[in-house]
Amino acid sequence: MNNNHYVIIMAGGIGSRFWPMSRTKFPKQFHDILDRGNTLIEETFIRFTKFIPRQNIYIVTNQRYYDMVKDQLPRVHDDQILLEPLGRNTAPCIAYACNKIKKINPNATFVVAASDHVILNEKKFQKDIETGLKACSEEEIIMTLGIKPTRPDTGYGYIQYLEETKKGEYYKVKTFVEKPDIELAKAFLASGDFVWNSGIFLFSGKTILNAFQQYLPEMSEQFAEIEEVYFTENENNVIRQLYSTCQNISIDYGIMEKAENVYVIPTEFGWSDLGTWGSVYQNSEKDILGNASKGNVMIYNGANNVINIHDKNKLVVINGLDGFIVVDTPDALLICKADDEQFIRQIVSDIKGKEGEKYI
Amino acid sequence: MNNNHYVIIMAGGIGSRFWPMSRTKFPKQFHDILDRGNTLIEETFIRFTKFIPRQNIYIVTNQRYYDMVKDQLPRVHDDQILLEPLGRNTAPCIAYACNKIKKINPNATFVVAASDHVILNEKKFQKDIETGLKACSEEEIIMTLGIKPTRPDTGYGYIQYLEETKKGEYYKVKTFVEKPDIELAKAFLASGDFVWNSGIFLFSGKTILNAFQQYLPEMSEQFAEIEEVYFTENENNVIRQLYSTCQNISIDYGIMEKAENVYVIPTEFGWSDLGTWGSVYQNSEKDILGNASKGNVMIYNGANNVINIHDKNKLVVINGLDGFIVVDTPDALLICKADDEQFIRQIVSDIKGKEGEKYI
Repeated sequence: MNNNHYVIIMAGGIGSRFWPMSRTKFPKQFHDILDRGNTLIEETFIRFTKFIPRQNIYIVTNQRYYDMVKDQLPRVHDDQILLEPLGRNTAPCIAYACNKIKKINPNATFVVAASDHVILNEKKFQKDIETGLKACSEEEIIMTLGIKPTRPDTGYGYIQYLEETKKGEYYKVKTFVEKPDIELAKAFLASGDFVWNSGIFLFSGKTILNAFQQYLPEMSEQFAEIEEVYFTENENNVIRQLYSTCQNISIDYGIMEKAENVYVIPTEFGWSDLGTWGSVYQNSEKDILGNASKGNVMIYNGANNVINIHDKNKLVVINGLDGFIVVDTPDALLICKADDEQFIRQIVSDIKGKEGEKYI
Repeated sequence: MNNNHYVIIMAGGIGSRFWPMSRTKFPKQFHDILDRGNTLIEETFIRFTKFIPRQNIYIVTNQRYYDMVKDQLPRVHDDQILLEPLGRNTAPCIAYACNKIKKINPNATFVVAASDHVILNEKKFQKDIETGLKACSEEEIIMTLGIKPTRPDTGYGYIQYLEETKKGEYYKVKTFVEKPDIELAKAFLASGDFVWNSGIFLFSGKTILNAFQQYLPEMSEQFAEIEEVYFTENENNVIRQLYSTCQNISIDYGIMEKAENVYVIPTEFGWSDLGTWGSVYQNSEKDILGNASKGNVMIYNGANNVINIHDKNKLVVINGLDGFIVVDTPDALLICKADDEQFIRQIVSDIKGKEGEKYI
């Protein structure tokens, strides 16, 4: 393994579309949502340990999740857990990690990835990451992994690349596009030069810090000037102050969409962002009638349901239900038509208005 | 109040059509199923205390429910609680109570009623019971209360009476009919001389014990010959032995359908046997979309559901569900199309086969 290779796992999200399983106090990445024996963040961590030195894998998360990270990833040292006092989207998260790691290794090359995605073909994933790390350590470029689309999905952002710029396995990016409507998504799929934005980025420390300097100079300055506190007792305090004045912006919007040196490897490795119950359904084993159940569930005359029961000792009997999401936890139960899954976010907002933070 | 008036409340059923709310260990009659502040057996007891001496109200139940009866009806004396070692249907239950009470009052007149029915018009109910008690204390007749049907219900037994036999408010019964199919039920409704069998019977001790002697002579003998043990420490032991050899038969089939002196008061007092979730639904308050919910429930785009949530602190969110029964308890959840409610009995039987007694 190459000691200059680092991973930044972003684990600060609250996964409100997975309510009531995912909660502010216990979000999606800390659940074994696909019932595979490991939580999503454990799977993500284990996946990287196969080719990145364990001590080089950093987790950026909200400070309220510190205990859960320690519990699920007990071999990760405290220095590798970066605690955000509040969510400020992905740009500050990456600026923080890259500036901190620069202090101990100015020659680092990074992979940035979410903690809660599923990747089925790990060999292919590893090969693509290694291709990207090599390229990023040799050239001042930012590499993205683009997933070859198989359907006109409206839940993902897209990346368009320039066919004529092919260099080995990667292409220069033409443009980033936010989640499209269905017509646009169909056009993207047909055009052949659009891929899904997996949110996995690679770059050297030098490249990304230069990009921050150029496109987010204030943020760049904020995280650079506190170099002396990284890896000290005072780090958390100083970070807490810094975040209170820090810009709330994504790395996509703040840097990727503006930078000139962004490339993409179009690939496929069984990726899903597990963004909705629908994607959980797609990635789950199903019975002959297309029900994906986790728990002790008996289904009569029911098809195409995704059922997630927290308590393994609870018996669930379903009769005559078709195309629903059923999620049961000790203090909340959701029964929602699967077609309306995007509505769950609104439901969570309504609950907040009605009940406060109690069930969120 | 008349000290010769007695009530026998039958409270031994297990209510399997109300699974998972109703359990062998905690059946329907001990639940406040309509969310009115009292359990069904409490309501039944309170209803009778208004015109029957409290010490004359007897409960016949399974021995496993003794603690629950004591808990819910703390002012009932142990002598008033008759414990059956196992269910043998209603004939032994009534033979037991009437023989026991004969020992302390040979001039008793009885009302027999289930513990888990709903009666909305208590004044009318009381009036009918008093009419029946008076008639039964004056003549050697068995009186039933027949509910004037409002729909061709296939979930009830029917009683046909002889129009020309009208005597005050009651008629001679022509025949008892078990639950009919829908075509027959429609014909009954149209004919005008059929009423629903409420399962409420009245008779004097003398009359019913004569009837037992005539139609169930063996059972009559069994309960008569142990007279000396009633109201003694040995009663439970002897009853346990007796029940092990006792015939399993209903009072309807064993006596009512055969006796010549059975009469009926056709009446209506907002009665329901609460036999199914459908009848709970009919007797519940509903929101503007026809949802009857018990618990902290938020419903979006959902109508005609009956929702029963055991834990008041649990939040339930339902979206896009129409015409379902949703029952949540700590260890079991049922989501069942309301049209299939008769299927719940089969479900319970399947669960028994798969899981044993654990969830039953």
